[in-house]
Amino acid sequence: MTAADLSPGLPATLIARAVAAALDEDLGLSGDITTDGVIPAGSRASGVLAARRPGVIAGLGVAAATFRHIDPTVTFEAVVADGQSVPGGSVLARVAGDARALLTAERVALNFLGRMSGIATLTRRYVDAIAGTRATIIDTRKTTPGLRAFEKYAVRAGGGMNHRTGLFDAVLIKDNHIVVAGGIGPAITAARKRAGHMVKIEVEADTLAQLDEALRHHVDAVMLDNMTPAEMAQAVRTVAGRAVLEASGGVSLETVRAIAETGIDLISVGALTHSAPVLDLGLDFEVAAGPRA
Amino acid sequence: MTAADLSPGLPATLIARAVAAALDEDLGLSGDITTDGVIPAGSRASGVLAARRPGVIAGLGVAAATFRHIDPTVTFEAVVADGQSVPGGSVLARVAGDARALLTAERVALNFLGRMSGIATLTRRYVDAIAGTRATIIDTRKTTPGLRAFEKYAVRAGGGMNHRTGLFDAVLIKDNHIVVAGGIGPAITAARKRAGHMVKIEVEADTLAQLDEALRHHVDAVMLDNMTPAEMAQAVRTVAGRAVLEASGGVSLETVRAIAETGIDLISVGALTHSAPVLDLGLDFEVAAGPRA
Amino acid sequence: MTAADLSPGLPATLIARAVAAALDEDLGLSGDITTDGVIPAGSRASGVLAARRPGVIAGLGVAAATFRHIDPTVTFEAVVADGQSVPGGSVLARVAGDARALLTAERVALNFLGRMSGIATLTRRYVDAIAGTRATIIDTRKTTPGLRAFEKYAVRAGGGMNHRTGLFDAVLIKDNHIVVAGGIGPAITAARKRAGHMVKIEVEADTLAQLDEALRHHVDAVMLDNMTPAEMAQAVRTVAGRAVLEASGGVSLETVRAIAETGIDLISVGALTHSAPVLDLGLDFEVAAGPRA
Amino acid sequence: MTAADLSPGLPATLIARAVAAALDEDLGLSGDITTDGVIPAGSRASGVLAARRPGVIAGLGVAAATFRHIDPTVTFEAVVADGQSVPGGSVLARVAGDARALLTAERVALNFLGRMSGIATLTRRYVDAIAGTRATIIDTRKTTPGLRAFEKYAVRAGGGMNHRTGLFDAVLIKDNHIVVAGGIGPAITAARKRAGHMVKIEVEADTLAQLDEALRHHVDAVMLDNMTPAEMAQAVRTVAGRAVLEASGGVSLETVRAIAETGIDLISVGALTHSAPVLDLGLDFEVAAGPRA
Amino acid sequence: MTAADLSPGLPATLIARAVAAALDEDLGLSGDITTDGVIPAGSRASGVLAARRPGVIAGLGVAAATFRHIDPTVTFEAVVADGQSVPGGSVLARVAGDARALLTAERVALNFLGRMSGIATLTRRYVDAIAGTRATIIDTRKTTPGLRAFEKYAVRAGGGMNHRTGLFDAVLIKDNHIVVAGGIGPAITAARKRAGHMVKIEVEADTLAQLDEALRHHVDAVMLDNMTPAEMAQAVRTVAGRAVLEASGGVSLETVRAIAETGIDLISVGALTHSAPVLDLGLDFEVAAGPRA
Amino acid sequence: MTAADLSPGLPATLIARAVAAALDEDLGLSGDITTDGVIPAGSRASGVLAARRPGVIAGLGVAAATFRHIDPTVTFEAVVADGQSVPGGSVLARVAGDARALLTAERVALNFLGRMSGIATLTRRYVDAIAGTRATIIDTRKTTPGLRAFEKYAVRAGGGMNHRTGLFDAVLIKDNHIVVAGGIGPAITAARKRAGHMVKIEVEADTLAQLDEALRHHVDAVMLDNMTPAEMAQAVRTVAGRAVLEASGGVSLETVRAIAETGIDLISVGALTHSAPVLDLGLDFEVAAGPRA
Repeated sequence: MTAADLSPGLPATLIARAVAAALDEDLGLSGDITTDGVIPAGSRASGVLAARRPGVIAGLGVAAATFRHIDPTVTFEAVVADGQSVPGGSVLARVAGDARALLTAERVALNFLGRMSGIATLTRRYVDAIAGTRATIIDTRKTTPGLRAFEKYAVRAGGGMNHRTGLFDAVLIKDNHIVVAGGIGPAITAARKRAGHMVKIEVEADTLAQLDEALRHHVDAVMLDNMTPAEMAQAVRTVAGRAVLEASGGVSLETVRAIAETGIDLISVGALTHSAPVLDLGLDFEVAAGPRA
Repeated sequence: MTAADLSPGLPATLIARAVAAALDEDLGLSGDITTDGVIPAGSRASGVLAARRPGVIAGLGVAAATFRHIDPTVTFEAVVADGQSVPGGSVLARVAGDARALLTAERVALNFLGRMSGIATLTRRYVDAIAGTRATIIDTRKTTPGLRAFEKYAVRAGGGMNHRTGLFDAVLIKDNHIVVAGGIGPAITAARKRAGHMVKIEVEADTLAQLDEALRHHVDAVMLDNMTPAEMAQAVRTVAGRAVLEASGGVSLETVRAIAETGIDLISVGALTHSAPVLDLGLDFEVAAGPRA
Repeated sequence: MTAADLSPGLPATLIARAVAAALDEDLGLSGDITTDGVIPAGSRASGVLAARRPGVIAGLGVAAATFRHIDPTVTFEAVVADGQSVPGGSVLARVAGDARALLTAERVALNFLGRMSGIATLTRRYVDAIAGTRATIIDTRKTTPGLRAFEKYAVRAGGGMNHRTGLFDAVLIKDNHIVVAGGIGPAITAARKRAGHMVKIEVEADTLAQLDEALRHHVDAVMLDNMTPAEMAQAVRTVAGRAVLEASGGVSLETVRAIAETGIDLISVGALTHSAPVLDLGLDFEVAAGPRA
Repeated sequence: MTAADLSPGLPATLIARAVAAALDEDLGLSGDITTDGVIPAGSRASGVLAARRPGVIAGLGVAAATFRHIDPTVTFEAVVADGQSVPGGSVLARVAGDARALLTAERVALNFLGRMSGIATLTRRYVDAIAGTRATIIDTRKTTPGLRAFEKYAVRAGGGMNHRTGLFDAVLIKDNHIVVAGGIGPAITAARKRAGHMVKIEVEADTLAQLDEALRHHVDAVMLDNMTPAEMAQAVRTVAGRAVLEASGGVSLETVRAIAETGIDLISVGALTHSAPVLDLGLDFEVAAGPRA
Repeated sequence: MTAADLSPGLPATLIARAVAAALDEDLGLSGDITTDGVIPAGSRASGVLAARRPGVIAGLGVAAATFRHIDPTVTFEAVVADGQSVPGGSVLARVAGDARALLTAERVALNFLGRMSGIATLTRRYVDAIAGTRATIIDTRKTTPGLRAFEKYAVRAGGGMNHRTGLFDAVLIKDNHIVVAGGIGPAITAARKRAGHMVKIEVEADTLAQLDEALRHHVDAVMLDNMTPAEMAQAVRTVAGRAVLEASGGVSLETVRAIAETGIDLISVGALTHSAPVLDLGLDFEVAAGPRA
Repeated sequence: MTAADLSPGLPATLIARAVAAALDEDLGLSGDITTDGVIPAGSRASGVLAARRPGVIAGLGVAAATFRHIDPTVTFEAVVADGQSVPGGSVLARVAGDARALLTAERVALNFLGRMSGIATLTRRYVDAIAGTRATIIDTRKTTPGLRAFEKYAVRAGGGMNHRTGLFDAVLIKDNHIVVAGGIGPAITAARKRAGHMVKIEVEADTLAQLDEALRHHVDAVMLDNMTPAEMAQAVRTVAGRAVLEASGGVSLETVRAIAETGIDLISVGALTHSAPVLDLGLDFEVAAGPRA
């Protein structure tokens, strides 16, 4: 299976580029001087990639690509799939090949997989917390610089959905835009002239009056900023399906269910990508020394 | 002041490259379609970059470079300095310039500054927790792919020190290396032949017997892996200054002081870079509409 | 004025990168050997960038960036603005500076400006051809590899709008997708699970029956592929505003008005970007020899 | 067959880089969200790449490389060869492999092949128009930024020859150079000091007097700018083989034969690369759904 | 003066890219840790770039660009010019600015300038050795990977001329080509079909018979491979100006004059770029400590 | 065997990038126009890579990667290994495959291998010159811009060791640092605060008094700058193993043994990388013409 098969929907060119950059960082001009000095050329090794703690896995294709970037003959057999929830101690994949290659690639592979799985795991916790409601957990643009594609992929693997990818693929009119434009209506009108027919428009509303104005201008979605659940429930009734409603601001695992139960459509959570702790993973090796070079 | 002045020691070329990549991600082929549609050309704005919560700041040079990448005429006046601890609500910097540029650059600048400050803040908590002992908090290679230089800089800003940068600048002999080499002694001997005179050698020791063997081969440092404080204290007495001693594994804010009080030299904490939550920051704007283009 | 001011909405990083690549192509390892050999160092020149034929201008910011890439002290004063229609013979901009820099940058600047203006000019012809109808001219993904952002910008400058930017920012379900999915309904359902709430969904319909099915599944837009005007008019009546309707296939300047008069919303024209002839431009110099180096 | 075999003489590194850039543009951070959502993993497909209209084919190696960039296991069997003239409806190649890969790569592959074949087709029309004369059709530096190697290759595939590649590989002394240098003679002398023995020198001549002066200084070629056929015939007689003569300026399919019949050596046509319409191509698929993932 | 002014004809983009790559190599992720630790922020310094030994200078523009890449406010005043011969001890340029920037950039600037000046110096020795003859010293493609533009520039600065830049800008038919083609004549005929009218053709001749055959096919140049001076003199008489004659193979400072006196046009010397020792340069600083940061 | 196997310890990504850049330089936009014109498609060839002169080989992995970059099916069988000393006339490797690919890649492969082997050969001469002493030959940062990793690898292949890789991986306090810091002691103290526990500190000492001061501050190494052998011997006695001692400045093959016999630990030689002449290599082909395309 290729990296694209293990992490479907994540463009292979992005994987290749990020893996090369991460290995460059770790190898510098001199490479892995410990392994090159200590492990004889031709040594073989195999290992088991395991989760030390329970979590949701994301990024197996990136981990596989990391090992193969160092040595294309390394085998990487995934035992689980991206998006799968696993108990602590689970084997995720088996790797085998040149011992130097495996030892050299180990940390970078774990850094990708642990971080992406951490995001998927936190996302799943939010998703589970609102089970049975009609709401969906979504991410934000508060992602790690350089890794947005990977983090938004991990959110999907965790069961969430993605908000807009960047500034380029959807309109989100915020308070400052509204002030300059002279109101929600003029802002929407101006935005629509720039955006094509395939671009959706969302407006931030701090009050129900703003929500009304936005609806009158037929926006696709409205972001309710820092409203109370009671206000949100009122907004849901007001909108009555005429636009998608997003709750935003100060969402936590403690508060998310109450928000979801207001009938809101979407709950955006910046913490999914900006504050998810890593999922603790390890690579348990068996190394067999080759003949001294 | 240049980016290099605001974040001294962080190579300006790395800043420029990371900022460009992060903006590429956010702007795609179409740019900020909301701002371009809604904000008239020529509008001016100013804003105040503020910490919503207390923390240690790192990355002001990167934030400044982000705004200036979009528009070199934007002014960025830092009010605090990297490494400074600030209370919640503190103003960090003032920005002023073309309104479109400020709105477009805002999120990427905050993503860098929030993440780096989050690492600095967590580092400072560990540093403060061991105040008065002789130990130093250090980082690991468990960094975000592509951002190692930025995260290791943030650890220094938080008051910690850096472990080796990558696989290339120091030798760290781990259990698998020892097994293949046939013992700690042969591993050190092999490594020394590859490493030059300016490269230090550290060995992982799981037992005091291994520690003894490492000392006999004159290593520069020994990493004590998952030892109890009592074992560490014993190790400190055994070594008696002949090598630097590092505690590693399972360190938390709860356990770190007891470890430090064993007399150990270094305590490495992976969480500094792999699990630090972002520091909550915001950019409060005043936007003045220009004449309609 | 910066490049971003002259061609607003076109990300400056994309301009810088495309200009550098184009100059690399033209300069190779040896640079402009004619100019270096013949024009004395220190010579000054000025010139007038002019349209040899009538057309709509697009890309002044890119042309300016090309001259400034060679020599940042070159002045570029635009006389017209992107999106403006000009008669043949019009002066577009004045450039002045180091003679070598101007002569070396000339062809690349003209290649960008001529090509982009060619697209804007052809777009304007389509836009004018449907004046008074409610339809909008849009582009396609049939763009020049590497220049999509520039060409979609030129379409906007010409008065058209953009279809989706790429495969990533909107769903367009075509015949092959429908066949595999087992029908329009299942295809839409599957696509909706992948696409977030900010992503619109369009379906290709070859028949009015397919159109009905698409409407039942609440798509945002329907692309009518190669239908006759009569069929389109029927589709317009059927849809009655429930979705955006796009006419596609075989549109020409001869046929576009009849299509627009069916009441359709959008008319996509691949030729805007794949077959627009260049707008004929020239740079008329006055070169003053400096002292022999 | 490799890309280099299908499009011989086009450096494989250039192909790889242009294909990656074009796919980046189309895939962004999210990839082909339609196909990923709708087409089950593991589906297979095959297709026939066909010319909708008659033309000359160029770029099969680039098209093949596009499919293989997405999935290296895709098979691409060319039925015709670059440079071959085909009737409308001709099958050009058969592709088979993973259905997602084929659908995702389709548009970019067609964008390259259609554009390059458009150039080859227009070139062939000019070449055919002067059949039987001793003249050769050549291109100019009026190429698409970033694609010069591809477009000059397409001109050769169409039966034309290339003028200089860029500013770096030949000297072309134009009117502004002559003015500054103080005449054709001094300009040639100055240029010769910079150019090595393997670099040819061409001079633009607007009059027969200038032609005489250029010949006295032993230039390799002379570009006759906007002369009438009668003047060109006179120039041919004057030169009598002492230099290569190029006709330039305002050449069209209507005028090219009369120009060729003057006995001129070369006729340069900017339109070959700046205004050739795309050759209309299509990819007719058969998609077989795989098991739902 | 810009880098382009100090090293005219060397494309500024190439300089910028090579300088960035060289500084990346030297700075890694951590920068200049000695200077950052020891030199207080805000310290100023000035220095004198001097030649320790006599030589010909080349690369002042590259050295200037190196300092300015680290800090754009550094001043670099050249005292001599590229191509100038200087005695040992000569001051070449004065630099002044931020002390950290100067210390950090020093080695890379010297590496460029010393290497390029070494090539210029060796070239000048060959040029001087044949003074008064009609021959010209030229380089080869035996250049340092990645630095061809810089090395060919240095050869010109030393008074030599350049052979072809690469495989792309001139035809050089060697023995293996001749064998496969079935003789010099067929090889020339085949090459001419591929090369445009602005591309020169040179043939390698090992014997005078081969020289005759090449002349019959009107080549532009003939490379006489490893011939004795007597054979070369015979070749010069045979050719009588009908082609340019190049002596190649085993040329040294001891043998070059005898070769030049045969009347040959060109003498190519691989050692100019593959074996020139560096010119010994140094940077003598005056550093003034700033206030402790 | 992969490139990494043939040149172990040299990161494969660095090899790939340097090879691509070098081939780009040589191929430009048009490729190898001689070979493409003259050698029929499908021709096969084989060749023997041989040393024309005795030397030490380094870079076989880079040479192999060069051929395979052009055509992955080329076979490259190394007969000797990197680091091996060979007599003149030795066969180093056999290559076989597509004739065009071999002819096109030849020069770049030789440029890498010849340069790296030149460095290894010169290093070996220094190493042999001090045989029997306890000293080690080391390199400096006076390397070719862009090729540091390759040149430091070649020094190791020649039997030398590496000094620090760049400014980032070790502290080297020089005279200017000392002056600003106000003495050796303060400089060391300041540097130690910036450098982590895995970074060694070396100080330049011009006098024995400075040496004493450095030892009092427990530096890891001291560089004796331009001392006489007698002074060095005195320094060795003074240090008595408390630090590593490096001799630097003006070392030649004539003087190196006397220096080594002082008992010094390290002798750094800039000439290894800045002035090593190329090792003369060649590729002797047998080309078999394929059927005319």
